[in-house]
Amino acid sequence: MTSKPQQVQPIGVFDSGIGGLTVVRALMQRLPHENIVYFGDTARVPYGPKSPQVVREYAAQDTDFLMRHTVKMIVVACNTVSSVALEVVQKHSKVPVVGVILPGAKAAVEASSKKRIGVIGTVGTIASNAYVNAIRRLDSKATVVSQACPLFVPLAEEGLVDHKATELIAKEYLFPLKLQKIDTLVLGCTHYPILTSVIQHVFDGATALIDSGIATAEEVARVLDEHGVKNPSNQKANVQFFVSDIPHKFTEVGERFLGQKLGRVRKAEGFL
Amino acid sequence: MTSKPQQVQPIGVFDSGIGGLTVVRALMQRLPHENIVYFGDTARVPYGPKSPQVVREYAAQDTDFLMRHTVKMIVVACNTVSSVALEVVQKHSKVPVVGVILPGAKAAVEASSKKRIGVIGTVGTIASNAYVNAIRRLDSKATVVSQACPLFVPLAEEGLVDHKATELIAKEYLFPLKLQKIDTLVLGCTHYPILTSVIQHVFDGATALIDSGIATAEEVARVLDEHGVKNPSNQKANVQFFVSDIPHKFTEVGERFLGQKLGRVRKAEGFL
Repeated sequence: MTSKPQQVQPIGVFDSGIGGLTVVRALMQRLPHENIVYFGDTARVPYGPKSPQVVREYAAQDTDFLMRHTVKMIVVACNTVSSVALEVVQKHSKVPVVGVILPGAKAAVEASSKKRIGVIGTVGTIASNAYVNAIRRLDSKATVVSQACPLFVPLAEEGLVDHKATELIAKEYLFPLKLQKIDTLVLGCTHYPILTSVIQHVFDGATALIDSGIATAEEVARVLDEHGVKNPSNQKANVQFFVSDIPHKFTEVGERFLGQKLGRVRKAEGFL
Repeated sequence: MTSKPQQVQPIGVFDSGIGGLTVVRALMQRLPHENIVYFGDTARVPYGPKSPQVVREYAAQDTDFLMRHTVKMIVVACNTVSSVALEVVQKHSKVPVVGVILPGAKAAVEASSKKRIGVIGTVGTIASNAYVNAIRRLDSKATVVSQACPLFVPLAEEGLVDHKATELIAKEYLFPLKLQKIDTLVLGCTHYPILTSVIQHVFDGATALIDSGIATAEEVARVLDEHGVKNPSNQKANVQFFVSDIPHKFTEVGERFLGQKLGRVRKAEGFL
């Protein structure tokens, strides 16, 4: 079988920073033969607390960068961008676009037996109501409780994954969701899977945690099939990492998110 | 007395975000008749974890923005910029430039009786060794212990100023400084004065805290005198605020830092 050029083209993935590496990790597990080009906008991270206008502008620039690498599809790993700027990415690219909101919402509705679903995310993601709207479109009777957890990103980046301080902060953030007796919780930010154990602890393990990254990898596989552009190769995939800045502690933090060594990371120009 | 045009020109102040409002607060108290133009790069905040190269590029753009407002001098409120990019600001402006490092270092050396001085700041500020070098130039025998406190910025921005979690994190960050029996601590980041009470608590009130902002306002007064450009007006000063993004919670957080209502805040163009 001769592979068409489009099939060997990489999947483009972008995020505000390195949190999106948890999505790359899921993609590499689900689709080990797909080439990937990752871009993390580390010079301007975080997007979560910023205005939708600014996030849209950055998303357009991030998309243009990936398109210059002739990607066959784009995965918006960033929940904030997926919440407020997915249509900007669709407009700026001429390839299929998958965000993390809809796959995460679908997985939550499927997992929840009582249809009492919690959503946590950045201030931008939660203010957008994107998850709430997506879940309600799938099941209009679902009860959805959402909560911004702005300190989870810096706590995860600093590696305070099983620290007493993180536990105290998590208890406060998650208290309203616990009160509402949710049975399923969407981790609506790429950083949050790093904090799984402390979040589980708050819910005494009684709540299903939905990692949007894993759900998104499943959706990406479906879209590749649908468009007939799955890479038929059995070779080891080529995964390339670009960032707009290589800050202090980058490699250390990046490896924690990817779950393995990052290899070569290149600086993308034109983002200052 | 007729004031020369230069005397009524504003002082330009910039910071990575809104932390620099603690410096504006000190300036407004020390020099209540000086007009001020403030710029906070809220579209790209924080600078602390980013690389010196990126911080220098942003500092040049921030300086150009203030120069377009014909400022008579520039105050670099941001400790990270003052640490790694002061010469960039000097090169891009043709007016006197005051950073926060030297005033903070001087105030620390003056306040310390045992010359055992601690310095806390962002990862960028601490990695630069700017405070350590400045203090050692003033007193070569001083013992200086420094510590990056990356979570202090998000904790201050989230208003967790007297929270148990902040106390736990502060205890860990400050433990090495306490061990070294410092008698003076430089708050080497514009956000940290917000956390004064929790920091004092860790040291049982036995350590003098140096707010670089207050020391800097003193230095600004001296430089204005030296150049004969102090504003002779007795009128209420005109203080203008510009930011590159107006994100969620901006006004609330800004007021906490300025210690009063912000008034009108305008969006500066050209920073995306």
